[in-house]
Amino acid sequence: MSLKFSIQNKLKNKLGRVGVIETPHGVIETPAFVVVGTKGTVKALTPEQVKDLGTQVVLANTYHLYLQPGGEKVKKMGGLGKMMNWSGPTMTDSGGFQAFSLGMAYGEKVGKISKNPPLTPPLVKGGNGEDLKLAKITEDGVEFKSVIDGSTHFFTPEKSIEIQHNIGADIIFAFDECTSPLASYEYQKEAMERTHRWALRSLEEHKRSGKQQSLFGIVQGGRFEDLRKESAKIIGSMDLARRGGGFNGFGIGGSFDKEDMNTAVGWVNSILPEDKPRHLLGIGEPSDLFGAIENGCDTFDCVAPTRIARNGQLYTRNGKINVMNAKFTSILEPIDKKCHCYTCKNYTLAYLSHLFRAKEILAYTLASIHNLYFIVNLVKEIRQSILDDRFEMLKKEFMLQYSNGTE
Amino acid sequence: MSLKFSIQNKLKNKLGRVGVIETPHGVIETPAFVVVGTKGTVKALTPEQVKDLGTQVVLANTYHLYLQPGGEKVKKMGGLGKMMNWSGPTMTDSGGFQAFSLGMAYGEKVGKISKNPPLTPPLVKGGNGEDLKLAKITEDGVEFKSVIDGSTHFFTPEKSIEIQHNIGADIIFAFDECTSPLASYEYQKEAMERTHRWALRSLEEHKRSGKQQSLFGIVQGGRFEDLRKESAKIIGSMDLARRGGGFNGFGIGGSFDKEDMNTAVGWVNSILPEDKPRHLLGIGEPSDLFGAIENGCDTFDCVAPTRIARNGQLYTRNGKINVMNAKFTSILEPIDKKCHCYTCKNYTLAYLSHLFRAKEILAYTLASIHNLYFIVNLVKEIRQSILDDRFEMLKKEFMLQYSNGTE
Repeated sequence: MSLKFSIQNKLKNKLGRVGVIETPHGVIETPAFVVVGTKGTVKALTPEQVKDLGTQVVLANTYHLYLQPGGEKVKKMGGLGKMMNWSGPTMTDSGGFQAFSLGMAYGEKVGKISKNPPLTPPLVKGGNGEDLKLAKITEDGVEFKSVIDGSTHFFTPEKSIEIQHNIGADIIFAFDECTSPLASYEYQKEAMERTHRWALRSLEEHKRSGKQQSLFGIVQGGRFEDLRKESAKIIGSMDLARRGGGFNGFGIGGSFDKEDMNTAVGWVNSILPEDKPRHLLGIGEPSDLFGAIENGCDTFDCVAPTRIARNGQLYTRNGKINVMNAKFTSILEPIDKKCHCYTCKNYTLAYLSHLFRAKEILAYTLASIHNLYFIVNLVKEIRQSILDDRFEMLKKEFMLQYSNGTE
Repeated sequence: MSLKFSIQNKLKNKLGRVGVIETPHGVIETPAFVVVGTKGTVKALTPEQVKDLGTQVVLANTYHLYLQPGGEKVKKMGGLGKMMNWSGPTMTDSGGFQAFSLGMAYGEKVGKISKNPPLTPPLVKGGNGEDLKLAKITEDGVEFKSVIDGSTHFFTPEKSIEIQHNIGADIIFAFDECTSPLASYEYQKEAMERTHRWALRSLEEHKRSGKQQSLFGIVQGGRFEDLRKESAKIIGSMDLARRGGGFNGFGIGGSFDKEDMNTAVGWVNSILPEDKPRHLLGIGEPSDLFGAIENGCDTFDCVAPTRIARNGQLYTRNGKINVMNAKFTSILEPIDKKCHCYTCKNYTLAYLSHLFRAKEILAYTLASIHNLYFIVNLVKEIRQSILDDRFEMLKKEFMLQYSNGTE
């Protein structure tokens, strides 16, 4: 069955809303932070630890699972959820972002798609300064290199949907081109129009298959108001009518400048149909969440909480701290005395400092639990504040404290 | 309070017994496998995972905790158990073995102490063939290098006991010299006699402190019958009388040849007082356990189950398997269908293969849980077999199946 979405409450004079997404594997109370399990595991955590910290839904990356162990292998293992022992709702992205950004740029900064015209390979600077071919975009799809062994692969919209069918997540995404925030207007427009044609092909492939997973279309257009609005209009109204209807929800893609993001998200969500859920792709720093939510996004995924955790960076209401700071080796208190996460209930900063210095695996587990708990439950707190009509107060309090932190 | 030990049952015509050790942090039903948490964490596991797999007692390494974070830091954190969130019984070794074997030989095979006479530095071959100074032994103690930064440190019996008091485990060990199984008779004798003098100094330091932790004396003597018997007699009867008595239990140290071990352990345990527990240091391959138990050992610790787990080697009743074997990528069954561990109840070999290939942290967690569960519960099964008077049958069955495995 496809998802059902209902709205319970709305922010006054804003786009934000509280809702519930019903999936075959349970409900997602929105707004909700989607925890990333790139390769079919949330790094350093068991599924029980993921669930216990409050996670409602896990997103895996199609690009990574396609390369290893392969979509058909995941299918044979019973699909993503059964394979990884996660019984709740799941999502996969389309693989587009990684295909464009990780091609030959493994270890380089991702997302730096060139401003060159389409149909020529985007370039990035390699570690020693030479130009590296990232990925080759054609009307049909994108050719890219495996980060594992350098082998060449080709994704089309149909291929992305086929892989996502094999992986079997509850919510899947149309294949899109994720452009650089630095790309020119001309390139953004061409890429967006291609993304629209790929969205239609994704939708046709999905409806043709008869699969009951929910397909989200992706809005692009960079930081340009007319493109974002055009994309929201086209993707929001794309419908195969008698051949099975339109998208079950929407994704908002692309990299944004921090300042632009809320504005661009607002343009899009003013146009997208109100009765379908909206996912903001790859966003999730604490301070980004308020803006995304008040501008009408229901879900968001981001690797930041677990990635920075493994580097010893921990969220607190007073901003991020780095556990490698020498002063923490003597602190016999948890990361945050008011935090109710497993890590803060059972371990001191002094012990975490020891584990990080000793490079013990438990360090990454405990830090990941704390950071995910922080983000997942901050979003739950924001949700409750909308129900209680005190969103603005929470936002003001949080932003002041977070930005004024001593760290 | 010091420990109390009671014997519940004995093997007919053998030294093996079933008992209970009562410690301030709970009981240990013996024989018991002691899980190693070298740096104050069982690698890749939370304490709850350690407990859930059946672990009764955890041993940390004094050498490692002394170097990082330091004994006084552990004390400030409330001692080993509180620091690491483990509420059950704990042990620390004396630090001797690592000081001798890890000094300059980090990354080399440990335990290859030279046969040179004492009071000159033992030598090992470095990776490129040159002789490396390991550690410098004097009557007073041992000078060694830190594996972390190469700095020089000095352990005496008094220092080892002081550090172990700070760490605060329920059971601690006298400082000893762990010789190579290849050492000459002359060297073994000298080292053993020094170990006896160090044992007395350890005992005196411990009684002087008034600490209520239980101190175990260590029997050495290599593979020589007269030395092992002499050491058992001296350590077993060492007693400060009015100044506080003798050891609360005993450790059997030294590296053995596989064939010699059971014989040597038998010599020792025929002499050691029957009413005190005996710990076999650093032993724990599945096939070693039966011999150690029938020859009168009550507890044993070993890093093998977790170390080999992180290399993808998994215990089964049919011998060890390596999860990187290509055939396992397609096996949609657990490691062992009859195993009741968390890993076997929830994950397939195909998924484990994927996690190991992707170098995901969860791979190490799941493999460690399985291997520790296997060993800890094999020892529990052996314990029950002694109570049920069917030890010989279990031993025969296990050894036949384990050695005839298809792997």
